[in-house]
Amino acid sequence: MESLGRHILVEFYGCDVNLLNKASAVKEVLEDAARAARCTIVDSFVHQFSPFGVSGVVVIAESHLTIHTWPEYGYAAVDLFTCGEEADPWKCFQYMQEKLKSRNSTTMEVRRGTLNVDLLRHKPQPVKVAA
Amino acid sequence: MESLGRHILVEFYGCDVNLLNKASAVKEVLEDAARAARCTIVDSFVHQFSPFGVSGVVVIAESHLTIHTWPEYGYAAVDLFTCGEEADPWKCFQYMQEKLKSRNSTTMEVRRGTLNVDLLRHKPQPVKVAA
Repeated sequence: MESLGRHILVEFYGCDVNLLNKASAVKEVLEDAARAARCTIVDSFVHQFSPFGVSGVVVIAESHLTIHTWPEYGYAAVDLFTCGEEADPWKCFQYMQEKLKSRNSTTMEVRRGTLNVDLLRHKPQPVKVAA
Repeated sequence: MESLGRHILVEFYGCDVNLLNKASAVKEVLEDAARAARCTIVDSFVHQFSPFGVSGVVVIAESHLTIHTWPEYGYAAVDLFTCGEEADPWKCFQYMQEKLKSRNSTTMEVRRGTLNVDLLRHKPQPVKVAA
C-alpha cells in the first residue's frame, strides 16, 4: 500500500536525565537526527519549561521531528514523521536513541496518507499556485 | 493505565483544497484549534511549499499540534498531542474537521508515556532546575 509518509512514534525511557532538561542540547540532538537522515531543516524551535521539561520541534521539508521530555521520569515522547522515498525515519531513531542514552524504548510506525480509496476518490485537483 | 499524554493521529480527506494551500489560513485554523481546547500557545510556525503544500506547527504548553497538507489530494496529515488532564485533543479534531471542510477522516488515538513498568522502574529523580 502506497503512502505519502512514514511516522514513528517513540517512547524513550531511561534517558540521560540532565540532557533531557537542557533545551540547547535537546535542540542539537533533534537537528542532528534530521541531518542523520539527510532531511532538509526548514526551521527549529525549542522551549524550556519551568522547572523541568523541554519541547522541541524541527520542521523539515519532509515533515517534522518533535520531542517532549519529562526529565523527572527519564522519559521523552518523540515523533519522527518523514515523507518521500529518500528520508528514513529509523535513522533519526537510531541517532536519538544513542544520544539520549535511552536504556529502553517502544516504537510504533504508522503509514500516513495511504493512497487508498479515500485519496483515489479525490484525484489530484487543480490547485492555485501559492503566491 | 495512566499516561502522560494523548495523541490523535488524523488523516483528513476531502478537504477544502484552496484552504490547504494557504499558509496563513492553515496557521489560523491550527491556532484556533489549540484555543478551542483551551491550550496555551507557546509558539507557532508555518511554511509554504512551492508549488503546493503547507506545514504548520503550534507548540503548546500541553505538547503540540501539527499539520502537513497535500492540496492536490485534498489531504492533510494532522497530529494533536496534548498532555495533562485539562486539554481534550478531540476538541481540536472537531474544530479542524469543520474548518477544513473534511468530507471524511480516519483517526487513531495513542496514549503517550504510559506509566507502566518502564516508567516505574525509573522513579522520579532529582533534576537540576533549568537556569
